[in-house]
Amino acid sequence: MIHKTSRVLVSGLREHVGQTVSVSGWVNTLRLQSKMQFVVVRDHTGVVQVTHKRGGEGDEVETSLEGLTSESAVRITGRVVDNPIVKLGGLEILAESVEVLNRAETPLPIDEQTGLEHRLDWRFLDVRRRPQAQLLFAVQTTFEQGMREYAYEQGCTEMHTPKLMGTASESGAEVFKLGYFDRSAYLAQSPQFFKQMAISAGVDKVFEIGPVFRAEPSFTSRHATEFTGVDVELAWIDGVEDVMAFEEQMLAHAIAKVADAHGEAIQETFGVEVQVPTTPFPRITMAETQEILRAKGWDPAGVKEDLDPEGERGIAAQVKEQTGHEWVFVTHYPTSIRPFYHMRPADNPSVTLSFDLLWKGLEVTTGAQREHRYDVLLKQAAEKGMSTEPMQDYLNAFRYGCPPHGGLGMGLGRVLMVLLGLDSIREATFLFRGPNRLTP
Amino acid sequence: MIHKTSRVLVSGLREHVGQTVSVSGWVNTLRLQSKMQFVVVRDHTGVVQVTHKRGGEGDEVETSLEGLTSESAVRITGRVVDNPIVKLGGLEILAESVEVLNRAETPLPIDEQTGLEHRLDWRFLDVRRRPQAQLLFAVQTTFEQGMREYAYEQGCTEMHTPKLMGTASESGAEVFKLGYFDRSAYLAQSPQFFKQMAISAGVDKVFEIGPVFRAEPSFTSRHATEFTGVDVELAWIDGVEDVMAFEEQMLAHAIAKVADAHGEAIQETFGVEVQVPTTPFPRITMAETQEILRAKGWDPAGVKEDLDPEGERGIAAQVKEQTGHEWVFVTHYPTSIRPFYHMRPADNPSVTLSFDLLWKGLEVTTGAQREHRYDVLLKQAAEKGMSTEPMQDYLNAFRYGCPPHGGLGMGLGRVLMVLLGLDSIREATFLFRGPNRLTP
Repeated sequence: MIHKTSRVLVSGLREHVGQTVSVSGWVNTLRLQSKMQFVVVRDHTGVVQVTHKRGGEGDEVETSLEGLTSESAVRITGRVVDNPIVKLGGLEILAESVEVLNRAETPLPIDEQTGLEHRLDWRFLDVRRRPQAQLLFAVQTTFEQGMREYAYEQGCTEMHTPKLMGTASESGAEVFKLGYFDRSAYLAQSPQFFKQMAISAGVDKVFEIGPVFRAEPSFTSRHATEFTGVDVELAWIDGVEDVMAFEEQMLAHAIAKVADAHGEAIQETFGVEVQVPTTPFPRITMAETQEILRAKGWDPAGVKEDLDPEGERGIAAQVKEQTGHEWVFVTHYPTSIRPFYHMRPADNPSVTLSFDLLWKGLEVTTGAQREHRYDVLLKQAAEKGMSTEPMQDYLNAFRYGCPPHGGLGMGLGRVLMVLLGLDSIREATFLFRGPNRLTP
Repeated sequence: MIHKTSRVLVSGLREHVGQTVSVSGWVNTLRLQSKMQFVVVRDHTGVVQVTHKRGGEGDEVETSLEGLTSESAVRITGRVVDNPIVKLGGLEILAESVEVLNRAETPLPIDEQTGLEHRLDWRFLDVRRRPQAQLLFAVQTTFEQGMREYAYEQGCTEMHTPKLMGTASESGAEVFKLGYFDRSAYLAQSPQFFKQMAISAGVDKVFEIGPVFRAEPSFTSRHATEFTGVDVELAWIDGVEDVMAFEEQMLAHAIAKVADAHGEAIQETFGVEVQVPTTPFPRITMAETQEILRAKGWDPAGVKEDLDPEGERGIAAQVKEQTGHEWVFVTHYPTSIRPFYHMRPADNPSVTLSFDLLWKGLEVTTGAQREHRYDVLLKQAAEKGMSTEPMQDYLNAFRYGCPPHGGLGMGLGRVLMVLLGLDSIREATFLFRGPNRLTP
């Protein structure tokens, strides 16, 4: 006999003491004793103890509970009673009916000892059973909401740029190629070219969160072949400083929102205190960065143009020590290691008006003012030895009055990784994609 | 000589009468007379007249204005003065300096007479110059914001599911295949399987806006090979009715927000009155729908299981006539034309607990309760003649306590198309992708 009452979330049970309600959730733990049966049921808001005194033959509730398995999906109806002895909120549900909505097979394929790769094979169970993973996606939601609040307030327009491209324009090597009817197409490595087209289309400030694809055979803890990018592009800027100012304000707003909504839970679950950053973030040029690092023994051969992960951690540690700040914009990257479309200062073409943003020593953003003058863009592409013919659709956007602009691309997973102190981008993504992983 | 003052938007000029300001924008029109020069400058907030009395030899402003071309990007500094004769807001700017940021080539490649396909080749200019396109993206932003407001309020979690898949699981024919290191990958036709995995992962309500890919050689006004999908999936539902109720509430909220923010502009620009729908929307079964349509002469051979566009328009017209409502849920689609994972009522396996949502006769959403019982799912897949082996990762999600759930997938472009009365999905997308179009 099933009593159907409407669902009450575990977090709201306290308001229903004395009433008969239904809870829906998963079997967290089972304790089947000779006289009593105890089931702890978990939903996305908490856990509650369900108690049943065995009634013997013909006791349907007893039979149902006896047949349960860990992680089965159940709907249990019963009376909510106060019981100060019960650790879980001082209340329990006296079961009146049990509906098994989906019985879990036994044994479960993963447990607390399972290593990362095997957990990823069974990611749905991994996420369901670990409070860290549940919290991750709640934080992701709040963080994105916070970024959008700031972006909308600044007048951003939500754009969806295509992921399918006709040519592998930006850099052929790291691009996925697909069959497209009787020809080929490529997956966009970033919305870069398309968000610039949106700027030339008169969209004043572009905002997009979407997938980006990188055909890089990288196996580090911070690389993925598909990840979620947060992209912003701003028209009519006076310089790259406008882009950095936008980003630090957006991040400060979004992180404050996360701290407000989840700060305590993050402290409890991850042992990390969310620091809402003060603005402006520190800024340091690449030349100064290298000077500081080399004085400390980094790159003894003196040949590195770019920062390696060690260099990134090194400069972040230095900035933290001197300013107490977790964030730093490294600016003016050498022209040799930046794409042709980054603008260069008129008085120094050996550097670009670009930046990387590091958080606790991890690169989470690349940004720049873009070169918007057609002739200069052609010259810079030629200097990099690039053929402009496959890029003509992109280049056309600069021939008819493209305004000055700049923007940034941020890796959402990397920010979440640092925010929650996770070891790997694999833990900061719902379903990770890497050179060796296309499943589940 | 350049006076640099901070930028004022055209919409805000009225507050600066008597002051010297800078405006940044595009040359909308040029009128160069023998004694006077007039330039109408357009930014994303409006248009303003810039006036200059020729000063003769050595007049830099005169020279700069003389060299301007339509659509050039300029920054003009000058004094804002009241001039009741000027039609554009009764004010003008007396130019003091002109900075040409990006001179547009002449002639422009498109004009008012250019046809759709050629306009799409130069989409950035098409969007920049047409107020309809500018408004489209503002409406898109507000509409998405409205949907998110509702979804967050209902407890939705923002998820980003992968677009790269290891197998072409749902239906091989319409899937794009790509090279993935030493193997193949496929582009997700929808987040369907992955959002169901999120449900099994304990995410109570899933929300995602992202790209979906269809390798269909369709050339209609409503099909694209890549489009933006709005996806929702809800756990622990009592039935498909919960999904329809969620969708109609979400749409009513989002459309009310659009009407509020842009109703007047939409009326002016598109000649369309935004109707905020009342809830609940009408619901009608597929069987009833076909009966009504056949009585009016649709499908005289009596062989069609699905609605064709004519049938969709026919039933929408009938519902509109009888109820005054622009929207209708057509429910209980036959099992034969629905995927294996749609749930079927226990007493009638020939239909599914599914729906399409039509707006003004155009299908904008497909939804259903999903079959969450592993054994039933296997049986239904086998009945459809599908091999379950390539789907095992998906099917695993149902073996360990997947709760009852259902959801919907909505085409964002289609909704915008109907909302603004556009003729083609090509006009409702920033950069359209079809079998013959991968550029720009």
